Amino acid sequence: MTRPRIVIVGAGFGGLSAAVGLAGADADVTVIDRRNYHLFQPLLYQVATAGLSPAQIASPIRAILRRAANARVVLGQVSGIDKERRVVKVDGRPDVAYDHLIIGTGARHAYFGHDDWEAVAPGLKTIDDATGIRRRILTAFEHAEAAEQPDTRRRFLTFVVIGGGPTGVEMAGAIAELAHAALRHDFRSIDPREARIVLVEAGPRPLASFPEPLSKAAHESLARLHVEMRLGKPVTQCDERGVTIGEQRLEAATIIWAAGVAASPAARWLGVDSDRIGRVVVGPDLSLPGHPEIFVIGDTAHVTDANGQPLPGLAPVAKQQGAHVARLLRARIAGHTAPPPFRYRNYGTMATIGRRSAVADFGWVHFDGTIAWLLWGAVHISFLIGFRNRLIVILDWLWSYVTFQSGARLITGPGSN
Amino acid sequence: MTRPRIVIVGAGFGGLSAAVGLAGADADVTVIDRRNYHLFQPLLYQVATAGLSPAQIASPIRAILRRAANARVVLGQVSGIDKERRVVKVDGRPDVAYDHLIIGTGARHAYFGHDDWEAVAPGLKTIDDATGIRRRILTAFEHAEAAEQPDTRRRFLTFVVIGGGPTGVEMAGAIAELAHAALRHDFRSIDPREARIVLVEAGPRPLASFPEPLSKAAHESLARLHVEMRLGKPVTQCDERGVTIGEQRLEAATIIWAAGVAASPAARWLGVDSDRIGRVVVGPDLSLPGHPEIFVIGDTAHVTDANGQPLPGLAPVAKQQGAHVARLLRARIAGHTAPPPFRYRNYGTMATIGRRSAVADFGWVHFDGTIAWLLWGAVHISFLIGFRNRLIVILDWLWSYVTFQSGARLITGPGSN
Repeated sequence: MTRPRIVIVGAGFGGLSAAVGLAGADADVTVIDRRNYHLFQPLLYQVATAGLSPAQIASPIRAILRRAANARVVLGQVSGIDKERRVVKVDGRPDVAYDHLIIGTGARHAYFGHDDWEAVAPGLKTIDDATGIRRRILTAFEHAEAAEQPDTRRRFLTFVVIGGGPTGVEMAGAIAELAHAALRHDFRSIDPREARIVLVEAGPRPLASFPEPLSKAAHESLARLHVEMRLGKPVTQCDERGVTIGEQRLEAATIIWAAGVAASPAARWLGVDSDRIGRVVVGPDLSLPGHPEIFVIGDTAHVTDANGQPLPGLAPVAKQQGAHVARLLRARIAGHTAPPPFRYRNYGTMATIGRRSAVADFGWVHFDGTIAWLLWGAVHISFLIGFRNRLIVILDWLWSYVTFQSGARLITGPGSN
Repeated sequence: MTRPRIVIVGAGFGGLSAAVGLAGADADVTVIDRRNYHLFQPLLYQVATAGLSPAQIASPIRAILRRAANARVVLGQVSGIDKERRVVKVDGRPDVAYDHLIIGTGARHAYFGHDDWEAVAPGLKTIDDATGIRRRILTAFEHAEAAEQPDTRRRFLTFVVIGGGPTGVEMAGAIAELAHAALRHDFRSIDPREARIVLVEAGPRPLASFPEPLSKAAHESLARLHVEMRLGKPVTQCDERGVTIGEQRLEAATIIWAAGVAASPAARWLGVDSDRIGRVVVGPDLSLPGHPEIFVIGDTAHVTDANGQPLPGLAPVAKQQGAHVARLLRARIAGHTAPPPFRYRNYGTMATIGRRSAVADFGWVHFDGTIAWLLWGAVHISFLIGFRNRLIVILDWLWSYVTFQSGARLITGPGSN
């Protein structure tokens, strides 16, 4: 009997968790990703705001799976899936055949009918997104320093973050700290503390997925960091000169999009319907209805909890789903009975706002402040892959905390020469 | 009396050394650079070979000069100099007027009549050069893993470094170590140790600027690392499929140029003659003949030593020249007599080949091996700017030494999505 071939598309939290769960199984595992690294996305905003270097939050997929002798890694862009022939199509390579397929290709930022906004209001999903945003933010301060007209200077010192979820809150807080601490003594014509950081949220409160008292705590922390909140009105226009919020115009040189995501094109590859934000609706075992050999996990999957609510796009959801599919496939290959349906265990969610300020929600208890912030740091360090990365991130954080400096203030990439 | 205006173009080793030397002087200092960071170029090859992250060897110029209250930093691309009006022209900005001008704009790699080779054989001068070369090297291993034809695989596993000076030797050694150690267990179809690393030098020996016994030691170290040396014949052709050395063709997917540099266009800006590699010939006090208010330093200047030999393009030369001009201008502003003519003090030169292998030449004594390697590490750490960078580079090196792993194996940038 030939060994079953398991193909995993995407080496994010879900796909990697499945691959690790299948290490040593009696199957040949192939992990396909268009990048050579696994990215620890929860800390990506710190790369975008010059706090950490890319290599500190990214690990080569091959290095992570080095000891999984039954796993191979393919670097390539998936362009489609043929469910009948059971092959994955990869650009410029022969088709990759599978007996079991796991899709965890994540999500991209989405502009919901305003795709032209992407050029002026970039989102944050990849390392190149992050170094691009870092370049925009640092270059804006440079332009402000060079500006001769007060209104030009004001425009370059105005930063708008669209979206009041965890990413938006973390970005706005980090830009405020950059301006008020790390850059404070760097300029001669401007005082970086004049920077205006505006966080726009169409809903009534920031961190809407958290309990209301935590939203209030986040709001107060942001105010202390001199972040302006604009609540209750959506952005109706984005262009190179600024944004329009409701009816009101705000001139701003730097706009960052943290307002929405849509799933990767997996639904299109599979030729199936998707939910409103492009996710594939899967069954209780995470398989595609009618196709027990195809699983969709993480941000790409629409899975509901016991209350019929779709699970959020969080790293722990994806990791638990990847581990579930690995267990299920191990049982299937061994001829054992399948494990019970997938059930998400919510161990809590957190978001950080700035220096000694974060919110944590564990369902039965929630709190904010320094303890939440320390906990946030400990949890993120413990989930970061690689001992060296952990050590160096800890050192960088301690250094920044003590000196108020940030470590990776480089303007690099296209147009930076 | 108004304070004299000193303009420094270029924040490399020379320009920064001048700016630091002028901190607190009774003059307004303006440092113009097209990048926002000072780069520690001697370690740039480690970024290109995935050993270090860019932020570890680069520091924001503004942060370095933060405490120099009389210094301001301008981020901009210089396009020319008007010696009559005494202004520096900067793209998209008003002219910058000077009373004294210091030019230290460094050098770029040069292809000496073969500019079309640059696209296939990139050189190493900037962070974007380094992350680009890192992308090429890591992608070549990926293509080799995916290749189906043995000759395609061989082509992707062949790396050619052109130029047997310190940069070429260090690059070739580092690529060999990457293939033999860090990547060793990462692939399933190829063994990275099959990689063929070829170092091409038109002259009779590598490290020609070092004493002959050190060239011999370097040659032996490179052979132990499985680097093939091709000596005595120049490269006559470079294209996407490989190189021609003398008459002999070598198929190679990755070609790196370390064969020659030419000075930045300062001579053109100044409207003066230059030497064979574009450097401006200056007088014994480093000023432009007939223009005591203009100084040219570092890789941009042609300065001869007591034997009439031009000084090499090394960091210590640039640093000593920057400090010299700062002393001279301080004396001139204070109305004191000028210091004696510039004289380069050679404290020694070093190059590293790989793990526990380097060469060091102090004139009166030279040696190679582990002691030279430890000394090389200590000297480079001590010259690196910023305590945090020093600490983190030390940790990264220790980690790599113990684990044989390398830290920054990311494929990023244009075309990596």
